[in-house]
Amino acid sequence: MDINKDIDTKKVIGSKAEGYRNFPMVPRVVFGKDSFNQLGDILLPKRKHSDAPFIFLVDEVFEGTDVAARIPVIFNDQIIFVSAEEEPKTTQVDALVQRIENDHSELPSGIVGIGGGTLLDLAKAVSIMLTNNGGSAAYQGWDLVQKPSIYHVGIPTISGTGAEVSRTTVLMGPDKKLGINSDYTTFDQVVLDPNLTQGVSKEQWFYTGMDCFIHCIESLNGTYLNAFSQSYGEKALDLCKEVYLGDLTSEESRDKLMMASWHGGMSIAYSQVGVAHAMSYGLGYLLGVKHGIGNCLVFQHLEEFYPKGVQLFNQMKEKQGIILPKSICAELSDADYDTMIEVAMGMEPLWENALGKSWRSMITPEKLKAIYQKI
Amino acid sequence: MDINKDIDTKKVIGSKAEGYRNFPMVPRVVFGKDSFNQLGDILLPKRKHSDAPFIFLVDEVFEGTDVAARIPVIFNDQIIFVSAEEEPKTTQVDALVQRIENDHSELPSGIVGIGGGTLLDLAKAVSIMLTNNGGSAAYQGWDLVQKPSIYHVGIPTISGTGAEVSRTTVLMGPDKKLGINSDYTTFDQVVLDPNLTQGVSKEQWFYTGMDCFIHCIESLNGTYLNAFSQSYGEKALDLCKEVYLGDLTSEESRDKLMMASWHGGMSIAYSQVGVAHAMSYGLGYLLGVKHGIGNCLVFQHLEEFYPKGVQLFNQMKEKQGIILPKSICAELSDADYDTMIEVAMGMEPLWENALGKSWRSMITPEKLKAIYQKI
Repeated sequence: MDINKDIDTKKVIGSKAEGYRNFPMVPRVVFGKDSFNQLGDILLPKRKHSDAPFIFLVDEVFEGTDVAARIPVIFNDQIIFVSAEEEPKTTQVDALVQRIENDHSELPSGIVGIGGGTLLDLAKAVSIMLTNNGGSAAYQGWDLVQKPSIYHVGIPTISGTGAEVSRTTVLMGPDKKLGINSDYTTFDQVVLDPNLTQGVSKEQWFYTGMDCFIHCIESLNGTYLNAFSQSYGEKALDLCKEVYLGDLTSEESRDKLMMASWHGGMSIAYSQVGVAHAMSYGLGYLLGVKHGIGNCLVFQHLEEFYPKGVQLFNQMKEKQGIILPKSICAELSDADYDTMIEVAMGMEPLWENALGKSWRSMITPEKLKAIYQKI
Repeated sequence: MDINKDIDTKKVIGSKAEGYRNFPMVPRVVFGKDSFNQLGDILLPKRKHSDAPFIFLVDEVFEGTDVAARIPVIFNDQIIFVSAEEEPKTTQVDALVQRIENDHSELPSGIVGIGGGTLLDLAKAVSIMLTNNGGSAAYQGWDLVQKPSIYHVGIPTISGTGAEVSRTTVLMGPDKKLGINSDYTTFDQVVLDPNLTQGVSKEQWFYTGMDCFIHCIESLNGTYLNAFSQSYGEKALDLCKEVYLGDLTSEESRDKLMMASWHGGMSIAYSQVGVAHAMSYGLGYLLGVKHGIGNCLVFQHLEEFYPKGVQLFNQMKEKQGIILPKSICAELSDADYDTMIEVAMGMEPLWENALGKSWRSMITPEKLKAIYQKI
């Protein structure tokens, strides 16, 4: 889960005068093995007319596969394959919107994102930008979207990010990495088909699942928690334990990790992340380390803050035979360290959530540097 | 939870050709102590104009209380206090719709139900019948509602039924007790304010909470379960254990039971109840025993089917000092027993869920009679 999504919760929780967030939930969800086959039936009543296509944004790993062949393309629907190698950008969103507007005389009936967090976030952003003027960078922030997005559907093919239920789409902009946090961001429909996650590599499966796990540890140990987020976070955590420490069949494991991601995503409604996300953000900013693995690299050294969580993490890592890269920070200069530390310490709500209002008395640049040096 | 709601799931799960249900979730939820105070702000953008009122259907126990005083009534909004002594009826729904149509020249902006399962179900039904022709009895069944209901908000003041998240409203009709099961039934907005449950009597708190607990036991031990419903059911069950067996503060207990009800309600998406609900339905049909207590009266004698569940139930009952009424069936005639047995055995999907397809080889009238005689 991206940090920007989580900062969003602070806005409401830190300021009770505004009240609790009126959280937008995904209004339609179907869960089941091969439920992907129902997509055609689900989209049919949402088709405005034959000139208003559905646009399918699909992770390019599916090009030429059975999954791509099963996408219910009719009329002038369009499949656009997109690489998920890099995190999504505002320029990429704007280019996709331009392409769709050039290719079709009518506003699409809807956008369908099929892939991991990157594809889901792109689908959300494109659906917003098809009805809102200007470039997507102008909407990075909180509640800046004025007009409802077009109908959009999320179909995760890897579990853990929670992007399928969140109200943000995190984009790398020209001058900041920040989410478009808006009630219009949430998907109108989600299809949860555990069979779609069958082709994920073991490493990616672990890192993305740990995104969910680490978020749960941080939010459950945070000071912002309430009973709503706690109940979802606890269930997501239990499911992660079953998946990474239990002895499930592959099928059970896929089912349960998909639900862990779902509940983990829901748990952000009224919670916040903490130390791992703050420090991982520094790592990502300086070195471009991707979110899932970045969290793991940091989290393994946070025994001081999350003793039980780190113990569990190490057990999971061992049981799954995952070996994390080492010496990531070995060659860095003092200036590099300063940059990472500055970015990390700028994430005030995360530190406050993790350590309380007096966090500045406990967190020093030296302390963070010592942790980064271990990575 | 009412049996009719649960039968609904069979339709989809028992018949994979139709696919998995595309489950409608409540699209907006706010959770928090005194979040009820945000209701005015929530309703404001939903007001069509000053002649289109909000109608508040409120449990009459709140008449003259602080809760009633805090209802954000403006313009020609109307508060209608309703008794929850009896379960809701189709005639009651039709009379409420008639009254609202007589009192206002315009279709209301929305309906707000404030109370337990009865008030929530009435609010759902009235919101449907304001846009659909004829009497409500004509819509008892599955997916018979043709037109979208008007905007409707659910605000539970007692936790356990799951009515706040379900897609049914269970009504006693002229010739059957059956839900209006429809995607238009689900609330558009739910406000979860644990402080609203402060005034509930200990007995009612126990019986309604046990509605949630027993549903979880039945669905988790059933043959229809999938990972989606399982994860919600397990969390609801864990929360029930904390509430009824743990040593929580009153505040924690209210928070957690409200979340148990929420997750328990969500768990019905792809699950089904079992033996207790089937037999409780017989008891309710013959003797008018209300749903929550009826489930308890039956469940205590179901060790054979749910050994661990009954053990837990007895622990909870003892810890909470609840004494269930006895000899309910002492004066019944053979014909009375036959009636209850016939009603109970007619609930085929529940037996199939509980015991598998060959349930008829295990359940005989004599067996059920022996159980009823203990009640």
